[in-house]
Amino acid sequence: MMRRSFQVAARLGHRCILPRLDPAAAFGSSTDSLVSRFCPVKTDLKDYALPNASWCPDMLSLYQEFLEKTKSDGWVKLPSFQSNRDHIQGLKLPSGLVAASDKSDWRIFTRCIQVEGQGYEYVIFFHPFKKKSVCLFQPGPYLEGPPGFAHGGSLAAMMDETFSKTAYLAGEGLFTLNLNIRFKNLIPVGSLAVLNVQVEKIEDQKLYMSCIAQSRDQETVYAKSSGVFLQWQLEEESSPWSL
Amino acid sequence: MMRRSFQVAARLGHRCILPRLDPAAAFGSSTDSLVSRFCPVKTDLKDYALPNASWCPDMLSLYQEFLEKTKSDGWVKLPSFQSNRDHIQGLKLPSGLVAASDKSDWRIFTRCIQVEGQGYEYVIFFHPFKKKSVCLFQPGPYLEGPPGFAHGGSLAAMMDETFSKTAYLAGEGLFTLNLNIRFKNLIPVGSLAVLNVQVEKIEDQKLYMSCIAQSRDQETVYAKSSGVFLQWQLEEESSPWSL
Repeated sequence: MMRRSFQVAARLGHRCILPRLDPAAAFGSSTDSLVSRFCPVKTDLKDYALPNASWCPDMLSLYQEFLEKTKSDGWVKLPSFQSNRDHIQGLKLPSGLVAASDKSDWRIFTRCIQVEGQGYEYVIFFHPFKKKSVCLFQPGPYLEGPPGFAHGGSLAAMMDETFSKTAYLAGEGLFTLNLNIRFKNLIPVGSLAVLNVQVEKIEDQKLYMSCIAQSRDQETVYAKSSGVFLQWQLEEESSPWSL
Repeated sequence: MMRRSFQVAARLGHRCILPRLDPAAAFGSSTDSLVSRFCPVKTDLKDYALPNASWCPDMLSLYQEFLEKTKSDGWVKLPSFQSNRDHIQGLKLPSGLVAASDKSDWRIFTRCIQVEGQGYEYVIFFHPFKKKSVCLFQPGPYLEGPPGFAHGGSLAAMMDETFSKTAYLAGEGLFTLNLNIRFKNLIPVGSLAVLNVQVEKIEDQKLYMSCIAQSRDQETVYAKSSGVFLQWQLEEESSPWSL
């Protein structure tokens, strides 16, 4: 498998991570190779996107449905490790974004709470050919906003994370440029919200995506959103990393 | 102090929390009375919006600056309890949104991580007359997205929460209808982001707000956003609660 690195231009001293992109650059990694690097066959890392006792029956049964689809219908179940630092073992991010390793307990935001059922419970399935994702999301009582319901910000973060992983795997999109959410109904804590994400187009080094979050029976729409992500130029690993 | 309840129309059976508003209704509670109910002089509840050893020097010194402004310049430091269930002891939310009390450990999403410095560190100052807020936000390592930087979703949630408290206190806005964020730069974990929120207008029972998140020296803009919140009609407590 061809390994690649990222060409980045980051002014970390100014806390400025704006990339300088070459408009003529081509984006090289195929979705298949990105997915295979993202989903290691063997790893010692804990995958948090597996069923546990806190999952509600709706979440469990829909998980099983999609798991069946991974066998024949082209869907891929994405693993979810504690930190993006774990994911980049298979992915590689721009070197300017990899902070010096230390002993801190780093966690990706959507896995910040590790007590089963209390925070984020979710699993993302991705379809490389259709360039779409489905995220099964069950908010716990630590994600509360109005009493008994998920905080709007917790859904916003779940959408951003699902967009993010989809954008990277579908087209090397790495950074959120825009997130626009229209909230319709509140999600009761402990229930299932199904997020359907679709890549609408890839243009001018940007990925445009849409998302609808709704109940499993599709009778209740919780929110609709759109996201724009910036593609990141890939180069051969033999090229020098530019900072 | 006049106490009030909310008139709501919620179809919880369908998980639908769309309020049926009376277009002619007036919104009665003054900002002063809302603020005084929100900020109890004496309480046994822990206020998480107080300095701790994890706060960076920038956050500490700006906190002290705003604390001085609370004495003479009309700013109010908002307390931040573990759950909105604690805040509603002074506020009251629509009864349809108050889930039956149980022994769960409920937490407002932005206080979901209680280990100092690991998750959300923030404090919100509100100016009732100017209808604006300033949120001092320091993301910890559990809020990570790209290695070493805050997850975009964690900033989205912080903006939503600051909008939410501002909207309620400035004009009885309770529910996010729309959140639109344009991301500019990443926030390094452990550093300070200053969120300036302004109520732009109140029209047709909606509050329109803007936010800019930037470094303390204003040289780096992290993100700009707008939020629209729905006002909730208040009625005298003697009126029947309508569900």
